[in-house]
Amino acid sequence: MTHDPILGIDLGGTKLALCVGQTDGTLLATTRREGWASGDWRRDLDAIAAQVPALLERTGRAGARLGAVGISAPGPLDVPRGRVAAAHNIAGWRDVPVVSYLREKLGVPRVTLENDANAAAFAEWRFGAGQGTRHMVFLTMSSGIGSGVIVDGKLLHGASLQAGEVGHLCIEPRGRLCSCKLRGCLEAYTGGHALADWIREEIEQRVHGAHESQVLERAGGDPKRIDARVWVAALRDGDRYAGHLRDRYLERLTQGLTALITILDTECIVLGTMLQANPDLFLDELRERVKSSTWREYHHVRLEVGKLGEELPFYAALCAAECGLEPSDSR
Amino acid sequence: MTHDPILGIDLGGTKLALCVGQTDGTLLATTRREGWASGDWRRDLDAIAAQVPALLERTGRAGARLGAVGISAPGPLDVPRGRVAAAHNIAGWRDVPVVSYLREKLGVPRVTLENDANAAAFAEWRFGAGQGTRHMVFLTMSSGIGSGVIVDGKLLHGASLQAGEVGHLCIEPRGRLCSCKLRGCLEAYTGGHALADWIREEIEQRVHGAHESQVLERAGGDPKRIDARVWVAALRDGDRYAGHLRDRYLERLTQGLTALITILDTECIVLGTMLQANPDLFLDELRERVKSSTWREYHHVRLEVGKLGEELPFYAALCAAECGLEPSDSR
Repeated sequence: MTHDPILGIDLGGTKLALCVGQTDGTLLATTRREGWASGDWRRDLDAIAAQVPALLERTGRAGARLGAVGISAPGPLDVPRGRVAAAHNIAGWRDVPVVSYLREKLGVPRVTLENDANAAAFAEWRFGAGQGTRHMVFLTMSSGIGSGVIVDGKLLHGASLQAGEVGHLCIEPRGRLCSCKLRGCLEAYTGGHALADWIREEIEQRVHGAHESQVLERAGGDPKRIDARVWVAALRDGDRYAGHLRDRYLERLTQGLTALITILDTECIVLGTMLQANPDLFLDELRERVKSSTWREYHHVRLEVGKLGEELPFYAALCAAECGLEPSDSR
Repeated sequence: MTHDPILGIDLGGTKLALCVGQTDGTLLATTRREGWASGDWRRDLDAIAAQVPALLERTGRAGARLGAVGISAPGPLDVPRGRVAAAHNIAGWRDVPVVSYLREKLGVPRVTLENDANAAAFAEWRFGAGQGTRHMVFLTMSSGIGSGVIVDGKLLHGASLQAGEVGHLCIEPRGRLCSCKLRGCLEAYTGGHALADWIREEIEQRVHGAHESQVLERAGGDPKRIDARVWVAALRDGDRYAGHLRDRYLERLTQGLTALITILDTECIVLGTMLQANPDLFLDELRERVKSSTWREYHHVRLEVGKLGEELPFYAALCAAECGLEPSDSR
């Protein structure tokens, strides 16, 4: 814990989010930039460091010493070495020693790294929909399914810092091929990219009425432009195929959530991104399905959507300073 | 922690196991009794209490004060009230205030209660196959599938003391009906009772060659006497149907284990009872299957069989004094 301001850095695929804040969750100054990655990670990190004085000035503490730096980054990470191993969505970011580079550049001894799903989970737990619980799971429901698990008031890192990969829970041993090369992962049925692939396949195969659905039309007739957004729009318009897909989506998601509940006996599952943007389309039925697929002893579990919304990356970055890990060489 | 001797009580369906031991896992004196339940829980608990002086005498500490009492009991328990809610296998045991009764009877202030699978998990972790790990899961593979989860050096109790119910992980949403009334639970495919039911069904339906298998003959021609033991014996004899069932068994078990690995990123999964008794029939292939169904990042996970064997109930009872909970009224 530190009383000096904390710098939070969220390295997003498209957006970079920076903030200066306090351990109690107060955001003192924030800034966001689209298309920030230049293709050269050194230049990117130098540009981040160059923004710190102005951020501090906006908090009224120009020239203040930073107490800690938290970095929230997409996996895979090499946390014991303080590196971003391969951020597929950030140009030029391969094997980046982000912790040591920023430690030196900013002169801050405590720099911690956390994967973005874990940091977001911790943020929703400390400051969002999971406040007041001891046990919580957060799921991002985006192009992929990321997640983070809070157990007994602590982020669960696991034996090899790979806990909570709920997106790759096997829900069907011989099921659909996932982007991770395994079969039947939850993400292969509920991730945005996988859903789009599934829709394209079904249009081509002319099954479940996919070829007669609005989905392709809403994508401007271009199968490549089909995505989860197009599906949701068709669903809102009462499209029959979109509704059929929703049934399968909810069945699979229910299976994933009941696995979490049965193993972890958690208090609250917080659903982000797509569910957060469309609770009216999914949430009530999901709650019903989960209830009827679990023991009475687990009916206390709350299903909620994320509360931090657009501010999530800032809180996640701030939380990375608390829940993230320092490289083992510095401990 | 206490330096006074600890009394451990394992309330088994058929066997009662009592021990006096130390927190470091030293068993000073043990005793076991079959068919111990009289149908009257008060009489049973009085009989247990009556054995304590003789047990203490055998440790060379006649008349010593007990530092704590640990009780390992079959669920469902009402831990916050210190009660065994309904031990279906123990005659007359319904809503038994086991903690308060023994606290008074023995004059020991610290009496803790833990469900038997959790206590066994803790025992294998502290003194058996999971020694030295920070994260471990233990599965009893008996008539049902019980389990306990160690996370970061602590037993995971969960929000409502129902964590780690791995036997009731849904592996097939519209699958076989489980004894718990849900569908597609791991136990419905891998628990001893469920396997026996499955075999009986398949013999009746004359599918997969079940009706031509040795299984029924080995059960003396009586379908009611079919159990997992009979299946294993047929398997050892090269019976084709028994081998077919083994394939399905391993596929389902693999799905359950990969769920644990993906969510918990554990270090070690310890398999008890049937797997422990027959590692040569299952363990190598199970390891292979789990490896090929999980990410490389998880290949560090060890699958082992339990090490404590026949002594497990004593260690579990001793551990219940450490990992078990006191009723909330006494805290």
